[in-house]
Amino acid sequence: MSSSEAASDLRLREVDAPQSQVAHFGADQPLSMDAGVDLSPFTIAYQTYGTLNADKSNAVLICHALTGDQHVANVHPVTGKPGWWEIMVGPGKPIDTDRYFVICSNVLGGCMGTTGPASINPATGRPWGLDLPVVTIRDMVRAQAMLIDRLGIDQLFCVAGGSMGGMQVLQWAASYPQRVFSAMPIAAAARHSSQNIAFHEVGRQAVMADPDWRAGRYFDHGVRPLKGLAVARMAAHITYLSDEALQRKFGRKLQNRAAPTFSFDADFQIESYLRHQGSSFVARFDANSYLYVTRAMDYFDIAEDYGSLAKAFKGTRTRFCVVSFTSDWLFPTSESRAVVHALNAGGAAVSFVEVDTDKGHDAFLLDEPDLLAATRGFLDSAARARGLMGAAR
Amino acid sequence: MSSSEAASDLRLREVDAPQSQVAHFGADQPLSMDAGVDLSPFTIAYQTYGTLNADKSNAVLICHALTGDQHVANVHPVTGKPGWWEIMVGPGKPIDTDRYFVICSNVLGGCMGTTGPASINPATGRPWGLDLPVVTIRDMVRAQAMLIDRLGIDQLFCVAGGSMGGMQVLQWAASYPQRVFSAMPIAAAARHSSQNIAFHEVGRQAVMADPDWRAGRYFDHGVRPLKGLAVARMAAHITYLSDEALQRKFGRKLQNRAAPTFSFDADFQIESYLRHQGSSFVARFDANSYLYVTRAMDYFDIAEDYGSLAKAFKGTRTRFCVVSFTSDWLFPTSESRAVVHALNAGGAAVSFVEVDTDKGHDAFLLDEPDLLAATRGFLDSAARARGLMGAAR
Repeated sequence: MSSSEAASDLRLREVDAPQSQVAHFGADQPLSMDAGVDLSPFTIAYQTYGTLNADKSNAVLICHALTGDQHVANVHPVTGKPGWWEIMVGPGKPIDTDRYFVICSNVLGGCMGTTGPASINPATGRPWGLDLPVVTIRDMVRAQAMLIDRLGIDQLFCVAGGSMGGMQVLQWAASYPQRVFSAMPIAAAARHSSQNIAFHEVGRQAVMADPDWRAGRYFDHGVRPLKGLAVARMAAHITYLSDEALQRKFGRKLQNRAAPTFSFDADFQIESYLRHQGSSFVARFDANSYLYVTRAMDYFDIAEDYGSLAKAFKGTRTRFCVVSFTSDWLFPTSESRAVVHALNAGGAAVSFVEVDTDKGHDAFLLDEPDLLAATRGFLDSAARARGLMGAAR
Repeated sequence: MSSSEAASDLRLREVDAPQSQVAHFGADQPLSMDAGVDLSPFTIAYQTYGTLNADKSNAVLICHALTGDQHVANVHPVTGKPGWWEIMVGPGKPIDTDRYFVICSNVLGGCMGTTGPASINPATGRPWGLDLPVVTIRDMVRAQAMLIDRLGIDQLFCVAGGSMGGMQVLQWAASYPQRVFSAMPIAAAARHSSQNIAFHEVGRQAVMADPDWRAGRYFDHGVRPLKGLAVARMAAHITYLSDEALQRKFGRKLQNRAAPTFSFDADFQIESYLRHQGSSFVARFDANSYLYVTRAMDYFDIAEDYGSLAKAFKGTRTRFCVVSFTSDWLFPTSESRAVVHALNAGGAAVSFVEVDTDKGHDAFLLDEPDLLAATRGFLDSAARARGLMGAAR
């Protein structure tokens, strides 16, 4: 696959005509963005699972992570792999699609059908590129709220998500407290740390250092900055895993060889694994989208927006379950604890689960029994409080 | 400064004619390398401080880290900045040049005058590039031992160094136990972890993704892969600092602006700082050298070489002081503790100092009073044991 084939392939297939449900918002419904501009028109691509009940009280919104998308519990249209949260979402699963109506939309700035830098700018007929206003987590959530309006849902039974998804959960609870009955931010934080901004900046610099990036206008040139984006992904991927997990899984094991080659080949399994992570990522993700979504996380700081974290959640009636993982060094437990303290200070109903695992940040995507049990228990309890039991099965 | 100017400038100035003392090793003295080849001729550039005493018993060899060099305690000839360990080395300093004869040589594979990939391959008259055999830590130490022979020194009073320098210290003690009276590995490990190999692989991929790398033949094309090397440095630099130190020093502070610009500029101080780290690094370092020295660390695994870590140090009479830092996540205390356990099992005289600091891996380069005091105390004690007190001042 040449660069230019990959370019047209990816942009056309899912950016312009996603294999998803799509909501269009026209000139009468602009999105008011934090950057100070109104975006219009724009599009949201989304998936739903299960059935909305008669009083529209069983909707669960799932917010996806940095490079995730709306394909939570169905085969991914580009990779052919299972949905990214099938362990969690489906019939009989903790987020039970026999009971709940599950919604997940591709984030604003993404590349799977929601308006992002690879989408066509109607003013020019060419891809937005960097002309798209910079997106914030709050912008993503504003767009999701407009989708929820469109679906006729007043209040979400639950908003849940991990990592950047957890940031959106917190933003939902802060921006629309009356619209969120319960909230489950997992492996998240109320602000992006200096170290995390640093890792994102490295990724962006890797993309922008690739001459095929062409100041963001690569589609016009029939190329894509695949090498730079792969390096960005490799660096980021290390941060998603723990030192212990890498040592246990790969250690210093050699890749299909008995002795080192004394070369710059991928002698070690960890090198081969990382290279694969880089190359498989670029086949499904847009480089400019990567710049936008990382930037959104960097700008995220609820305390800054509201004066303090406690003020952001003051008087909230939302029920919270905050989850962290012991070996997550990207969003360490201390960040979740800060959220819990603020919620307590605001008088919120909050439970906190620190899951003991060596799998690092990515644990939220994996078969972690304690996470699955906590989710099931939290939703059961919230469903009882919401009077959903009767309507459930 | 254009890429091509920087290229010829850097390669000519220090690679070929270093502002250092130089030892040439001719056809009669090849270096036997782990890659299975003899390197000949080759050159070692080095600095010395203080005076070698009459019985040549007061020599301290300092081993430098990944991108360090021999300019320990003098103004750097390229950057004009102070030597990298002036806090530690000099008259009256913990490694006291009024008492000790201090030697530091640029490592094999480096770019400050010792033979490395930017040096001229005498067989072709062109820079070695990737034709230079891949270098290991043991090769670096073998070359240093030949320099120590050349200087007529049988036994080093001490071998000391941090990070990759600490790996060399351990290799010295394993390879030449009778030639090392005392050894001080700081912020080091006896093997490179999976996570650390992963970060190095990201750096190498960043360099090799730069089209100006030209399969390592960039000098022939009058260019250098500056952007790729800068990205590699940025990623690595994050690992040298702790999350806490970054949060304390930079946090989410904006760079010379009151509000975010909603752009991909360096809005945050941490971004500006990292970009500066990248650009200043490429002005003094060769990209292929970066590949070689990172690879040397990846291949380092003393236990693998000797069957076990305890066997590597069995029966050693060298006195050890092993130092780690509480907030160093690149070479965490657990790695130093493994070395200490092996030394204890081998019956060695070993003291272990874990310095409490939030400054991360780079603490070994900084004004850490506990590190400075430990070094002074360890050397004083070793000097008494070696009978150096009389000869001292």
